[in-house]
Amino acid sequence: MTEFAPLFSHDVACMQYSAIRRMAKVAMQPDIIGFAAGTPSAETFPSEEIRRIASSILETDAKAALQYGLTLGYAGLIDSVASFSRARRSITATTEEICITSGSQQALDLIGRLFLDPGDVVFVELPSYIGAIGAFRNLQAELVGVRQAPDGMEIEDLVARIEACQRTGKKPKLLYVIPNFQNPSGLTVSPAKRRALLEVAARYGLLVVEDDPYGEVCFDPLMAPELRPIKSMDTEGRVIYLSTFSKILAAGLRVGWVVAAKPVIEKLDLVKQSTDLCGSMFDQRIVAECLRQGVVERQLPRIREFYKQKCQVMLASLEQAMPSEVQWTRPAGGLFLWVVLPDRLDSEAILLESIEEARVIYVPGHPFHVNDTGHNTLRVAFSKESEDNIRAGIHRLAQVFKHHLE
Amino acid sequence: MTEFAPLFSHDVACMQYSAIRRMAKVAMQPDIIGFAAGTPSAETFPSEEIRRIASSILETDAKAALQYGLTLGYAGLIDSVASFSRARRSITATTEEICITSGSQQALDLIGRLFLDPGDVVFVELPSYIGAIGAFRNLQAELVGVRQAPDGMEIEDLVARIEACQRTGKKPKLLYVIPNFQNPSGLTVSPAKRRALLEVAARYGLLVVEDDPYGEVCFDPLMAPELRPIKSMDTEGRVIYLSTFSKILAAGLRVGWVVAAKPVIEKLDLVKQSTDLCGSMFDQRIVAECLRQGVVERQLPRIREFYKQKCQVMLASLEQAMPSEVQWTRPAGGLFLWVVLPDRLDSEAILLESIEEARVIYVPGHPFHVNDTGHNTLRVAFSKESEDNIRAGIHRLAQVFKHHLE
Repeated sequence: MTEFAPLFSHDVACMQYSAIRRMAKVAMQPDIIGFAAGTPSAETFPSEEIRRIASSILETDAKAALQYGLTLGYAGLIDSVASFSRARRSITATTEEICITSGSQQALDLIGRLFLDPGDVVFVELPSYIGAIGAFRNLQAELVGVRQAPDGMEIEDLVARIEACQRTGKKPKLLYVIPNFQNPSGLTVSPAKRRALLEVAARYGLLVVEDDPYGEVCFDPLMAPELRPIKSMDTEGRVIYLSTFSKILAAGLRVGWVVAAKPVIEKLDLVKQSTDLCGSMFDQRIVAECLRQGVVERQLPRIREFYKQKCQVMLASLEQAMPSEVQWTRPAGGLFLWVVLPDRLDSEAILLESIEEARVIYVPGHPFHVNDTGHNTLRVAFSKESEDNIRAGIHRLAQVFKHHLE
Repeated sequence: MTEFAPLFSHDVACMQYSAIRRMAKVAMQPDIIGFAAGTPSAETFPSEEIRRIASSILETDAKAALQYGLTLGYAGLIDSVASFSRARRSITATTEEICITSGSQQALDLIGRLFLDPGDVVFVELPSYIGAIGAFRNLQAELVGVRQAPDGMEIEDLVARIEACQRTGKKPKLLYVIPNFQNPSGLTVSPAKRRALLEVAARYGLLVVEDDPYGEVCFDPLMAPELRPIKSMDTEGRVIYLSTFSKILAAGLRVGWVVAAKPVIEKLDLVKQSTDLCGSMFDQRIVAECLRQGVVERQLPRIREFYKQKCQVMLASLEQAMPSEVQWTRPAGGLFLWVVLPDRLDSEAILLESIEEARVIYVPGHPFHVNDTGHNTLRVAFSKESEDNIRAGIHRLAQVFKHHLE
């Protein structure tokens, strides 16, 4: 057999299957209550409308829908995304400032390749999205964690860390932020702090990568002004905004988008070209029609109510069942919340017991922390399970924690 | 405005829009005869069957089809691809040796990331596929061109170049070959040379990347035994085989696949995870059903006849119209052929005249050569235009060449 180890590239040689990846199989067992996967509920996908639209596209425009398309995306979808961004996210962008991607994950990878040489620094929240951490680490970037207050990164900590990087000759490049109902913490960055982050980025010459998959999944419509993207305050092209239709339409269609300054999109075009030529044209046309016919718009109230309800059930169950030493966030939107155990507990060690004895699965918080902390934290998603299962699961989980706190 | 130039990564900073990319707009003008794009004809896509299948999937299994899936691909498709590879390509692979990708282009990028550190060497045919050249170059690999005889790479030249690399301390890693109806030359590697390439790779510790998008588009069914992939001769996991449904089903669905040894697929899983989480689940289910219901199988004779006919018309037109100093290949399959002009002519310079005066567009051959040669060559696709347009276009192109040969 061929020896592959000496042939793998520097970075790949070090990659290991993580505990989280191995858990995926456990999560599929039928009697498991799944709080691990941060995926949207398939019940929210408007499958009948998508079926009608898909069928109609193939009746009227099959040749184009089944053929290669432009690397930056289907023009009809780019137009619709421009309108959607303006109407719903207060972002004004020309069609030359938009790129369609295979979900936000592709955008994270491409943005990383666009800006990161090995050793370049990305500042991330503590904790931050594991998929972004993975994408940037695979490019050999250095990830520096910034302490996160309930209203977002602590600005003093951010500034101190940027200046420390500069002193040691490292190149600070990106400031990665998930402003709304953050993955994994469920926290939301305040408007004042959004402005402050943009100011710090400008002062130190960083770009802001604003990852906003959950902005439309807010439980209180009156909250919308507080959720205005950093990109909407950006007058100098400093913010690269990412979002996706995975949470508000359908995750399996793999359609996300980037809004950025034209010179960034032009380079993105070149990088993306060699990574996939173009995304799925059929998926892109389906999403474009869903936007054009108002399917997405009509979905939003239903989706918000759906997750709000589940979140409330989970919060009430936590209140009832958890021992007083356990704390958690109270998200105003999104798909999950964040649990903090007393320092002496290790959520990774407890997970095994939780699976075997309580049949409940969650994600340990340690891998979300780039500074090797967070052993006592975990992410709990309320998106997937029924209300009954949420109640039962939280009560069972509370028993496991109690056992460890005795 | 933000200054992006100092922020771009090393490699991206150097990227320029190529002449070929700029041509895309010209190609869309309605009176242009297009021999440039190497895309399949949308007329070959079985849109009615895809419509029926897509609709049925969303009726019966929408929740799964619209949800995230596994990074390596939808299990039902992996099963079908394993059967297809065995039945049609004589490749025996377990489901753990297969990864579904967003077309072959994503596979090229991922394989590159898996094995290439900056400066590592990839050996490619002269000429070779421009998308592979781009993907490997974007990873800062060094591309070394190997002279191509009508039956494939010249083995002596390949060996000499591998040994030259080793002497200078470079790391030869991959041998990239498109064995059937090569893009761009239309040439096919002989069975004897396939074995020789595998032997050389084994002797010098290289992996073979076998890119086979056109193997099923062979004009003569009796030729099949000659087209057996190098992968089918591989007993030690040395060959990484890539193919795609873009040419035999529909390009816009973006479904390709990789067959490789299990340790390679395992690492591929990790790299792919951070680049897109998963490919389009809807596309993957459609392709899986097309395979299961025999749609792909039934398509093949029709597609072969379709392109064979067009190829014959183009060959006959070339015979009739071209001046004697012009030469071309006679492909036994695929979508294009290769034209060689006398040395003193420059196909890039002539292209402008061809567009403006003859309204014919083709791809200049120089960018397909990693050693800065091929200025007198061009790729001409017969896939897109009608027979009448092929005749008219070749005759007009012949006039342009004659003018330059006077």
